[in-house]
This record gives sequence, structure tokens and C-alpha cells, in this order.
Amino acid sequence: MINKEKIHPLLQGPVQSRDGIRGIERPRGLLDALQEDNEHLRSLAGMHIVSARQFDRNQILQLSRLAASYETQPDLIHPPLRGKILVSAFYEPSTRTRLSFESAWHRLGGDIMSITDPATTGIAKGESLADVGEMFNNYGDVVVLRDNSEDSVYSMLDSLRIPIINAGNGIDEHPTQALADIYAILKWYPSFGREDLPEDKKVIIGVIGTPNRMRTVRSLLLLLSLFSNSIKKVYIVNPSTDLFDAEQQEELEGAGLKIEVIHKLRDVLPEIDVVYINSIAWVGDSYETLTGDIKLTSESNLKPNSIILHPLARGEELDPSLDKTEHNWYFSQARGAVFIRMALLTCLVHRINLVVDSPVDQPEEQ
Amino acid sequence: MINKEKIHPLLQGPVQSRDGIRGIERPRGLLDALQEDNEHLRSLAGMHIVSARQFDRNQILQLSRLAASYETQPDLIHPPLRGKILVSAFYEPSTRTRLSFESAWHRLGGDIMSITDPATTGIAKGESLADVGEMFNNYGDVVVLRDNSEDSVYSMLDSLRIPIINAGNGIDEHPTQALADIYAILKWYPSFGREDLPEDKKVIIGVIGTPNRMRTVRSLLLLLSLFSNSIKKVYIVNPSTDLFDAEQQEELEGAGLKIEVIHKLRDVLPEIDVVYINSIAWVGDSYETLTGDIKLTSESNLKPNSIILHPLARGEELDPSLDKTEHNWYFSQARGAVFIRMALLTCLVHRINLVVDSPVDQPEEQ
Amino acid sequence: MINKEKIHPLLQGPVQSRDGIRGIERPRGLLDALQEDNEHLRSLAGMHIVSARQFDRNQILQLSRLAASYETQPDLIHPPLRGKILVSAFYEPSTRTRLSFESAWHRLGGDIMSITDPATTGIAKGESLADVGEMFNNYGDVVVLRDNSEDSVYSMLDSLRIPIINAGNGIDEHPTQALADIYAILKWYPSFGREDLPEDKKVIIGVIGTPNRMRTVRSLLLLLSLFSNSIKKVYIVNPSTDLFDAEQQEELEGAGLKIEVIHKLRDVLPEIDVVYINSIAWVGDSYETLTGDIKLTSESNLKPNSIILHPLARGEELDPSLDKTEHNWYFSQARGAVFIRMALLTCLVHRINLVVDSPVDQPEEQ
Repeated sequence: MINKEKIHPLLQGPVQSRDGIRGIERPRGLLDALQEDNEHLRSLAGMHIVSARQFDRNQILQLSRLAASYETQPDLIHPPLRGKILVSAFYEPSTRTRLSFESAWHRLGGDIMSITDPATTGIAKGESLADVGEMFNNYGDVVVLRDNSEDSVYSMLDSLRIPIINAGNGIDEHPTQALADIYAILKWYPSFGREDLPEDKKVIIGVIGTPNRMRTVRSLLLLLSLFSNSIKKVYIVNPSTDLFDAEQQEELEGAGLKIEVIHKLRDVLPEIDVVYINSIAWVGDSYETLTGDIKLTSESNLKPNSIILHPLARGEELDPSLDKTEHNWYFSQARGAVFIRMALLTCLVHRINLVVDSPVDQPEEQ
Repeated sequence: MINKEKIHPLLQGPVQSRDGIRGIERPRGLLDALQEDNEHLRSLAGMHIVSARQFDRNQILQLSRLAASYETQPDLIHPPLRGKILVSAFYEPSTRTRLSFESAWHRLGGDIMSITDPATTGIAKGESLADVGEMFNNYGDVVVLRDNSEDSVYSMLDSLRIPIINAGNGIDEHPTQALADIYAILKWYPSFGREDLPEDKKVIIGVIGTPNRMRTVRSLLLLLSLFSNSIKKVYIVNPSTDLFDAEQQEELEGAGLKIEVIHKLRDVLPEIDVVYINSIAWVGDSYETLTGDIKLTSESNLKPNSIILHPLARGEELDPSLDKTEHNWYFSQARGAVFIRMALLTCLVHRINLVVDSPVDQPEEQ
Repeated sequence: MINKEKIHPLLQGPVQSRDGIRGIERPRGLLDALQEDNEHLRSLAGMHIVSARQFDRNQILQLSRLAASYETQPDLIHPPLRGKILVSAFYEPSTRTRLSFESAWHRLGGDIMSITDPATTGIAKGESLADVGEMFNNYGDVVVLRDNSEDSVYSMLDSLRIPIINAGNGIDEHPTQALADIYAILKWYPSFGREDLPEDKKVIIGVIGTPNRMRTVRSLLLLLSLFSNSIKKVYIVNPSTDLFDAEQQEELEGAGLKIEVIHKLRDVLPEIDVVYINSIAWVGDSYETLTGDIKLTSESNLKPNSIILHPLARGEELDPSLDKTEHNWYFSQARGAVFIRMALLTCLVHRINLVVDSPVDQPEEQ
């Protein structure tokens, strides 16, 4: 007989089921807490999604509700994007974000064409970005673009006749990642979406990152400002100074966000309800890491019941010893990112009426 | 409040609709002008498409008619290629042609597998091209191949049991690009397809390029020769001499094309009805550019109502100042390329009967 | 007229039909010879497929039967994997195996996301393999992985909640290639699946390769050991010594396989019924070739009616002069590999009941 003892233990039975946090209780709770109101989604039809500034609070709540609906019933009987084509253009390498979008589009029933190797693109051949946009018009129904330049996506807006989603433009923005972050917070604490929370029910958020050099952080702060009434304070935790662009902090505070810059994580960690950590900062085309005391482990003095978010991929700053604790909401955040993208894509492609119970009048599809 | 003034103007509303030239009036006009006669498409079933020499005039007219049908109704209710697999093999980098074919195949309802990185191919592993062809037989229903060698596609014909489309073989040919060029001309001037045009209704075509070194030009001239009765003259505009291979010019003139070589564009530009421009010439694996007076701008002395075609990507030879003029048919040409490829692919895969009103007897699908 | 004589002969008519060996008589014969018993396939639902040790004889027979069923009717009217997503992760370059899996998944109606460029993966960004596994959980329903490290696939088992198929892990194993090899043998000789063959009906198998350094050979020998009662002897043909890992030969012999190491192919070739040849051995990241008398041509002293298998791509060791002989079963082997993978994938994704006549009770889909 073949020596069955040589078979790895984890090959001896079928794969194990998911655990609770990544199950459907949380999205179901969000569905119950939020009233459906698809009027707010109507305005997303045919829009480019480039900056987190474009969203209002109601859109985010309704997108999250639709995402929760998808998360509780992921197998769609009538996929709404059948026959639609996504151009997946990642001029800057990515696996997570690209697969997240592609998975979302596939689950909605659509088809995908990928551009993943910069050496084969129009840009490499010297084409103008306006011409690249014109080309995309002919081939697909939506473009998702990641590029290491802040300007590329903006340079294409004039020629594009199909919606484009910014999946990361240099150090500028990454709006759908911020949507995924808010969706995770809402699943954890649906009341975050209310406007009338008493002071003792508001949350303290800690952002370990660099607001003027991390696109994830820049977009997240913009979206958090829409929920200022539910936030007691936002700590920006960073050993450096010079963390904001001109007017960046003023704009956020003008929108109602209370911001406090802290240099040592240890000083405030026990107060924080939502710990957002992202230690990698773009400087040109290379990475730099925040050093010092920025590292979360199961030994860190986290507030009980607090949650940790991280856009992933992670490095040393977020230790695996936290993976099996209740603080681990970064895996759920990654999982939910597919569903919030499904919600957004559904709305962009004018198909909201195919997936909701109360259809709305939509602008004519172009 | 978030500072809404920081939102780019083009993000403040949904994407804008297409303009007229790229609308459906032109393809509809072509549908009216050409009688449907699908017998001519029957002979394309199961064929390899490697050289423009393989087509006859009636096939091109009927393919264009089918393309126009697709262009006026792009959302197919019953996609005819559902369940069919395309092997998209681009051993030579390309974005436009690859996305054009993949978009066409997706819109027909089929699935796609891509080989885009030469380093992962059979060729890189030392496999013979005959073995690569044999491999493709197992995996797909059609192959589209681009390679920087003229011989590769021919070397695979003996082992292939599924149709292959040449998407560019070195400097030799690019038949489907030429089909797209003719389709654009027919949409602009449906009478181009007639055999009995009086002399004053015939067109003068100017080809700015190098017939013996540009595959697009080589294929286009072969197809134009089929329409000799509608062409007063073809100017080949090029500062060089030695522009034709042995017998190339004789073969075209023998087919009825009147060719005149001109060295300065300025001398003839005001006479030309269809200006075809492509300034990039393959020399080994590098590019060389035609210099001198070969450059079109809105200041050029173009004939009124003349049209410009360019296979794209473009460089300095075709100035963006022409984009918003009526001469701009290069964007429409790119758009139409998807539909003419849809037409061709439908015929190759024996599915013509699923998309036309008057079905034809087809050879048994292999 | 265009010079039609310049059109290559093979472009003058539609593609030629397949020949007999690659037709459907053989799989049909296997369907007749094997009784359907899908209980044995039930246990594959939700399983990781990493090592050939995981299979038992009945599973292989029923998988082969299902593969034969697919091979005789490749166009599925109700594709069973519609809505399911495959993550095709080839961290080590491959065209054949990747296209084989992707073709299988497409023919089953599913969608695919590819990771083909190591420079864009999680691993390149320094993510742990556990995190990569966690990521895959969110994006797809099955992962197929090829990597040049033996350990990667095992490192992901703990975090994966979706099945993973090992498409080659360093020099360790390649279980689905071995399944394809057995499927080819069964199509050639269905009685190979019986347990009661008289001595003179058993087969002699020759494996030209390196058992401890070729993953294809390692997996194949493990599966052959399940059919020991139908095998008179297995020759391992190799000019070297030191061909087995510690206990590798003992384990196979303990399972009933009679193994004899031979250094010169010529000495035994006329006895061999099934010649399996694979001359490429991984040593680190480079290739080494078996030299000497290991080369099969139409002049080799092959036993009449013997068959040759080769996982392909092939080099000089298997001469094209054999392609048109009856010994050529390597093309059929490649063709069948798609169908055996379709069978395996159907079972993994719990969809066996959609494609068989006698449904079985399945474990709850996770």
C-alpha cells in the first residue's frame, strides 16, 4: 500500500468551513440596521470614480447596504452584468486589488480583459493617454486603472466615454479601498451610520500611516469626514511631522473631523476603537517603512473589542499572532472589498434595478 | 464640508455620450446600401485567415454588412459563440489588436485564454511550432496569433485543426486590420462597393507608408486591388525609393490598381479623398520613423470632406488638432475594427446561421 | 487579379478534421468497459489535490470514466461550473498546464482569473504564503498553483478555505499530469483497470526519467502502484544511479509495483508496452537533459502496438518521425488531459450531481 502517513494532515479531508466573523451574521445585521433607499444610488450611474470626495454619506450607506446584500447571497441567479466587459488596466503591479475587482466583476456575470504588463501598453509605445482613453471606449464598458502617476487617470477623462474607476493613482487616492474600509466599520458597528449618536457611543479611530503620502489614507480620511458625527476623534499616529499637504488637514477639520497627531502609538492605543494600520509609503517607485514602535502584536495594549483594519499586503507591522483574535477585522475587510466593489460596479453600469426590490428611475443608459 | 471645488469638473456628472460619426447612422447607411447575401460568407467557415489574398470582393462586402449589423445592435441577445474558446496568442507585444479581438470574442459570448508573455511560451521552451499548433488544437476553437516572425503562422498550419487568424506576422501581413480599413471606407462611402461607378465618383486614395515593410500597408493594398473599379488612383507617398518587393507592385497593378509613387505629400494632398497614414516601419525589432513633410495637422491642405485613416497607435505624424474635425475617421476605424472582427469570427466558427435572417447551408462543423 | 498562386496550399480550404486516435472511439470504449459508480467521486468534493498519494484506484477509474464521458460529448448544454471562479496561479512559467486547466474550467462554464507574472504576486511583495491563501479565499472557488518551491502549496493549506490543486511544486509532484497519463493508458487498454488480469495480459511499462527529480515521474509511479495487479513490471530507464529518494522505491514496491532499473533503453525497448518518456530534469532553476541512447525515433526497436506517452513539451528525445505512427499516444494524452481535469474539477466543486445520471448524496457545500 502507498504510505498514507506521508499524506499531509490537511489533505485528509475536505476544506474547512469559514469562521463566524467572515460569515454572514455581520452583513445581515447591517441589512437590518439600514433602510433601503436606492434613490441615493441612482446618481452613481455612468459616473467616473476617481476621488473619495465624490461620495456623500447616503451613497456610502446605500452602497454598503447593497454590498451586505451581496455578501449574504453571493451566488446570483441573474447576474446583472452579463454581456458587459471590464478593462482591467494595472499599469502598476497589483495582485490583491486587481483580483478583488476581477472577482467582483465575474460574480456579477461580466467578462474581463486584462492589461497587466506595462511593456505592452499604449504608454510604452508612446501613445498619449487621451488616445488610450479613446481606445478603451471601443473595447469595454468600464475601465479600472492603477498607475504610479497621479495624473494619468485625470488625463484620460476628456476622451473617455465609459466610466473609469481609479484603483490607485500614485500617492493620490484609492477611493474603493476607502469604501471597503468604511464597509468593514459599518459591519462591525452599524450605528456608525447614524447622525445622532450620543458622545459616549462615538468611536475613536487611530490611523497609523502618512496622510500626504499614502493614497489609502488620503481617501479614507475624506470618507471618514462624512461620518464626523459618529467619530469622537481621529488620531494620526506617525513618528514624523509634515504629514499633511497644504490644506489637507484644514479641509478634513472643516468637514467636522477632529484630528490629533500623535507620535507614539503606545500613548493612545488603549483608547482606540478602530485601529487602521498601513506602514508602507510610496516614495517615487520604492517603499519606505515606518520604523520604531509601530507594530501590532497580540501583546499590544489594544482596547478590548477594538478592531484592526489593514488594506494588506502586510509586513512586520501587523503580526500574525493577532490573526486568531477578535481584533482581526483585516481579513473581513478584504473579503468585504469584493462585495462593496460589486455594489459600486452594479450602480455604475446602470444595473441597479436588476438587483433591488424597489426599482428607481434611472438616467438613460448611454 | 469636503471642498467640492477640488473635484475635477469631469467627475461632476456621468460620462458624455458619443458623437455622430461614431454613432449608428453610418453603419445603418451601409446596411441599406448592401443587399444581404450570406452565401458569400459560407466559404469562410473553418478557414485560416492569414493573408489578405484569401478574400474576394463579395466576402468583404458581406463581412462589412454583418459588421454594420453588429455595430447598430451591439448587445446580442443570443451571443452566437457561447461555449467557444479563443486562444489569444500575442508573442509580439500589442494592446490595441489584442483588446480588439478579445472584445469582439467576448461580445460574441465566448471565453478567452491569453498568452501574452513570450517568456512563458512553448517557443521559449524550445518546442517546435508544429507542437505548439498541436497544443492549441486541444485547448481552443480559434487561435489569434501575432509574432515578429513572418514564418511562424505558416509553420503551424500543418498541425492546426482549428482556424488561426494572423494578427500580424513580422512585416508580412495583417489581414484583419485591412478589413477594418475597408469597412471604414465603406461606411464613409457605401458606393465604394459598387462595380459600376462613373469616373468622377471614384476615389483617390493616398497611402503614406512603406508597402514592402509595413504589414498593414501590404494587406491593405491587396484588399484595395479588389475595389480597383472604384479607385481612380492610389498614391504611395514616401520620401524613399525601393518601396515594393519584387512583383509586389506588378501584382497589384495586374489586379487593376493604378499606383503612383509620390515623394512629397504636399504635392498631392488636396486631391486625396482617403488619406491612410502609418509612419512606423519595422526594421528588425526596432522602429524607424518617416521624417520630413509627412505630418498631418488641421493646417494641412486636406481636401474638404476627405477622411483620414490610421491603424493607431499614432505618433507625431497625426496631430490631435485633427481629432475634432470631420477628417477624423481613425477613431471610427478603430471602433469598427471590433465589429468587423466579430463578423469574421462568427463566420469562421460556423455560426453565421445564428445571426442572420436568411440561413445558408453550411459545411459540417468539424 | 491577385496572384492566387501565392496563397499557401493550406489556406485554400477549411481546416482538416481530426484523425481516429484523437477521435471518440477510444473514450467510448472506456465508457463501455467501466461501470459508472459515482460514490467513489463523492469523497473528492471539497478536497485539496496536492499529492498522487491521495487517490485510490476506484476514484481514478471513475474520474477516467467521467473524463471519457466529457471527451465523447465536449459541448455541454448545461455547464456545471457556471458562476464559479478559478484562480489560475502560475508562479512558475507554464503554457501547456495552464492552458489545459483554463480550457477545462472554461468548458465547464466557469470564469478565470490568472496570476502569471511572479513580479506582480504577493510573494514578490513579501507577503506570507498564509496571507496569500487567505486572499485566494476571498476571490475564487478553486486555486490551481504551480511554483518552483516544493513547500509553497503545503504552506497555504492552513489558511485556505477553498480547494487547491497542485499543478507542480518544484520537483515534488504533479498529480493531475499523472491522472492524465493513467487516463491515456485506460483509453488505450481499458482492461488495465481490472484487478484479475492473467499474467500474459499484464503490461510492461518503461519510464525513461528520473523518479527523484521529476515531479511527473514521482506522481506517475505513485498512481501506477494502484494498478500493480495489471503491471508485469516497470522499467526505470536512466543512465544514472541514485534515482530514488530514501524509501521512494521501497514504498512503491511495498504497494506491489515490480521495479527494475535499466541503464540502456535499447536492452528492453522491444518488451515495453507503454513507453513513458520525459527527458527534462529540474536542477534548481535550470534544465539538464538525459544524454546517451535515450532517444525515440521511428527507427527505434519499439514493440509493435506499443504506445508512447510524454507529458510535453518535448525536445530531441522524442522525434517527430513518430508522430504519424500508431505509437503516438502523446497527442491523445495531451488532449485527454483537458477532460480528466474537467472530471476532477467537477468533483471538487461539488457539482458531480449535475453531470451524472445517478446522483449521489454529497457533503454539504461549504
